[in-house]
Amino acid sequence: MATETAEHRGTGERGASDAAPPPPVSFATDPGSYRHWTLGIDGGVATLRMDVDEQGGLRNGYALKLNSYDLGVDIELHDAVQRLRFEHPEVGAVVITSAKDRCFSAGANIGMLAQSSHPWKVNFCKFTNETRLEIEDASEHSGQTYIAAINGPAAGGGYELALACEEILMIDDGSTAVSLPELPLLAVLPGTGGLTRLVDKRHVRRDLADVFVTKSEGVTAPTALKWRLVDATLPRNGFDAAIAARAAEVASRAARPAPGQGIRLDPLVVAADDGKITYEHVHASLDRRTGVATLTVRGPDTAPPVDAASARSLGSDYWPLAVARELDDLLLQLRVNEPAIGTWVVRTAGHMDHVLAHDRFLADNCGDDWFVGEVVRLLARVFKRLDVSSRSLIASIEPGSCFGGMLLELALACDEQFMLDGTMSEGEEPATIVITESNASLFPMGNGLTRIESRFYGSAAERDAAFGHSGDLLDAAAASSLGLVTFAPDGIDWEDELRIALEARASFSPDALTGMEANLRFVGPETIETKIFGRLSAWQNWIFTRPNAVGPTGALRRYGSGQRAALDRERT
Amino acid sequence: MATETAEHRGTGERGASDAAPPPPVSFATDPGSYRHWTLGIDGGVATLRMDVDEQGGLRNGYALKLNSYDLGVDIELHDAVQRLRFEHPEVGAVVITSAKDRCFSAGANIGMLAQSSHPWKVNFCKFTNETRLEIEDASEHSGQTYIAAINGPAAGGGYELALACEEILMIDDGSTAVSLPELPLLAVLPGTGGLTRLVDKRHVRRDLADVFVTKSEGVTAPTALKWRLVDATLPRNGFDAAIAARAAEVASRAARPAPGQGIRLDPLVVAADDGKITYEHVHASLDRRTGVATLTVRGPDTAPPVDAASARSLGSDYWPLAVARELDDLLLQLRVNEPAIGTWVVRTAGHMDHVLAHDRFLADNCGDDWFVGEVVRLLARVFKRLDVSSRSLIASIEPGSCFGGMLLELALACDEQFMLDGTMSEGEEPATIVITESNASLFPMGNGLTRIESRFYGSAAERDAAFGHSGDLLDAAAASSLGLVTFAPDGIDWEDELRIALEARASFSPDALTGMEANLRFVGPETIETKIFGRLSAWQNWIFTRPNAVGPTGALRRYGSGQRAALDRERT
Repeated sequence: MATETAEHRGTGERGASDAAPPPPVSFATDPGSYRHWTLGIDGGVATLRMDVDEQGGLRNGYALKLNSYDLGVDIELHDAVQRLRFEHPEVGAVVITSAKDRCFSAGANIGMLAQSSHPWKVNFCKFTNETRLEIEDASEHSGQTYIAAINGPAAGGGYELALACEEILMIDDGSTAVSLPELPLLAVLPGTGGLTRLVDKRHVRRDLADVFVTKSEGVTAPTALKWRLVDATLPRNGFDAAIAARAAEVASRAARPAPGQGIRLDPLVVAADDGKITYEHVHASLDRRTGVATLTVRGPDTAPPVDAASARSLGSDYWPLAVARELDDLLLQLRVNEPAIGTWVVRTAGHMDHVLAHDRFLADNCGDDWFVGEVVRLLARVFKRLDVSSRSLIASIEPGSCFGGMLLELALACDEQFMLDGTMSEGEEPATIVITESNASLFPMGNGLTRIESRFYGSAAERDAAFGHSGDLLDAAAASSLGLVTFAPDGIDWEDELRIALEARASFSPDALTGMEANLRFVGPETIETKIFGRLSAWQNWIFTRPNAVGPTGALRRYGSGQRAALDRERT
Repeated sequence: MATETAEHRGTGERGASDAAPPPPVSFATDPGSYRHWTLGIDGGVATLRMDVDEQGGLRNGYALKLNSYDLGVDIELHDAVQRLRFEHPEVGAVVITSAKDRCFSAGANIGMLAQSSHPWKVNFCKFTNETRLEIEDASEHSGQTYIAAINGPAAGGGYELALACEEILMIDDGSTAVSLPELPLLAVLPGTGGLTRLVDKRHVRRDLADVFVTKSEGVTAPTALKWRLVDATLPRNGFDAAIAARAAEVASRAARPAPGQGIRLDPLVVAADDGKITYEHVHASLDRRTGVATLTVRGPDTAPPVDAASARSLGSDYWPLAVARELDDLLLQLRVNEPAIGTWVVRTAGHMDHVLAHDRFLADNCGDDWFVGEVVRLLARVFKRLDVSSRSLIASIEPGSCFGGMLLELALACDEQFMLDGTMSEGEEPATIVITESNASLFPMGNGLTRIESRFYGSAAERDAAFGHSGDLLDAAAASSLGLVTFAPDGIDWEDELRIALEARASFSPDALTGMEANLRFVGPETIETKIFGRLSAWQNWIFTRPNAVGPTGALRRYGSGQRAALDRERT
């Protein structure tokens, strides 16, 4: 087991303990800084061209040949998908294609996977999956329809990127193939939603899907079309013009804001030192000894803008947008850079009345105003990122907190909620929480239910009772009796109870906690999204630990060596 | 990785290679031979008393204390659940309780888990999960409602057994607790559906579920009732009488056949030697060199009985029942005893007209006659066992085969279908397949869809086109054009194509195949059943490979040693 333990580091490199640790991963970028993509805008059509810099890997030890990608490439893609919604709302169609000659994308870089630790691989897959779902979210909710233009071989994660698009157009030149060769070549699964999207999204017949994913060379255009792997095939001659025409047609049918309305997403300002990560509205303090990070979201200092235009004029300083972006960045950083911090305590601080006014403003304007709508959808995605984070989440609801409406989602996303009944010192007002209509619709989880519906799954009476108190300031006794918090200790017990709970959490196996939380958080119906995170990722997690894949003679380690993998043939 | 490889054996014991291999597992038993259960029948109420023989473990090396169980205990439970439906159809309520003093069940035996190989643990969990689902199936479809009478502490799998019952009644004596201590004590998940059933079946609030599964001592009656973990609590004094009264009430409301109608399930006659396993209607030949087993189901030699009473008078010789029991036993044996045989080729042989007549008889009588209904439901369970078997399934449809109606489900359960177009020798009739109304309703998969609905998920036109040909003898060309088979090679290509496909399959990683098949087989909606096999089991598979659980200093290995587990704190 020694080998397994040595691999068990979050740094992204095996044996990294021998060398200086690699720098923490940053998720901050912008189109002017992209090394791997170009983003072009032409009226209502945006084109994202993948042009991966072979020498631009986030870590040493591999070359990103043939538009293969690592986390750094995907960070830029995530940034572009995000920016298009805020900075270029006039865009109604986004073409994803390759800038390389006769190569779309070879998928996730195999050298990177082979040298990566287990947590790094899992984190990488999670982030790439979230980004693919962001693409689908933009197509579905923002009227920015993604079109994959496969202008050369698309293998593995390359084809899975196309699967996240609403339309897949492919060159028919006799040599361009789509393929998912992970299973035959690498002994792992297509890990970016490929299996799920084949059958559940594109309705590929399951036996044909089985043939496809066991055929390392994949299929060329005629078969790809027949099996529903792509939507249309086109000759190489005139391919670009056909894509442009199709994208223009899709864009022309989208109801998008007029050009020039976009706002700029300014760089986040963050200070990190000595166990503290501080943004303008969000901060975290990290206790590495106990394995606990305390995340605090500060409420707004002022009332909301008078109207949507005023909100937009604030740009990325608009409080709900700033909070969403800061929190998103914090979650991503903690996931990748702080794997040994297993519990996140979630707090808020601020004026409940301001939060509720902002929340009301979001609910009132998100249907009519594109910008407010995008802010709401970004908040929804950030809350979903919390849902799928493999950390124990504990809400700490104290005097001075402001868990109302949109911010109540933070508490509801947690595995347990602690709410102080009363106060800790004189002059304080006891904590309250507030349910609003936002909690009934604006922020669905991946399972399609709101967090309150998930909480009271199967018990409509309890759900309705909770919603019956919408707008009320619920103190600990009321919140507890409505089932909105787990524990409501008084001031005498508060610190001990919370401390004991955190210590207990830290004493459990992180692996078992991850599996348990992934099962309990997503009750009820399944969607492509919950299947990807709940089912596909769980199988991949397992396969990523198996000697047949990652052992010294496993397929992932031997790929490209000229030696065949030595496989243990026993079925589990 | 050497340790991992040594553990990687299907025999049920680590390091078993040093000793003589343990005998193959047999699933044949009957109430007179039970070592761990007593089955009592009193009018419409059956009582299954768990009374595990400490020294009766299926393998050496552990004692089954405190009604803890291993595979052998569960084989008897499976047998009892099955027999009750056929041998005691008058029963309308089944009480599961303990014969021990102040102990319901301590769950799966930890010594057994600690010493078992990874495949053994996974196979054990799969079978116990199937048996729990059989209990729910009997409650839902056969009017045999299961009631758990918790008359002492129920921990882990002990409480999960209760969760599979429709009602849970618990003694309130201040010391009897229900608990799921797997996560805090053993660093694994409750692996028999516990997490799923808490939130999805019993609608326990997810934060309370989180508290419950992280609290090793569990909760006593008042909290258990408040959190919906049980349905009623009763004083110890009078508990047995209260259970009896409740069971009698439940039984009295069930519409059950009059006493004396049950049939006897005779022991299966099976001969096994030299790579062949032969039952009366089912046989398998095992090629250990290529890792392929060929399973052949023989159709009936005669027309069906004239009516349901005649069918019943045939007892367990009735062909559809005999086939179901033989096939079930074969699947179980191959799973546990032949882990290195990774591909099952599924064949049929016989007269299509007889099969179709039997199929028609089942469809006509299963709604009105309890016995025929039970035969259909058993077939449905056997087909579902095929669906969740971690083996590649290839249907080989050849001249002389009889894949019609009920037997067509065998082909549809496969990952790929090969159908010979034409014949291999003179005088043969080309193979045909036949869809019947049985395929439209009688044999749903775990996802609630029929296999044809799953095959054409999202494509109603193709599904309807297939059903439009119900009753037609479809040759290879017709079956292929309707999308019912994957490949239809002619006689010249047949042997090569099948051989190449099997060789390719054998060359892939068994782990990746298992994960891939589990993802593609269950398209569309999820149910508690698919969550248990798809999500929960996948997470458990992963956790079962992790050093925090199974490593030398992991929780499962150190449990009971007085030493705490040494855990790697990094989250994945």
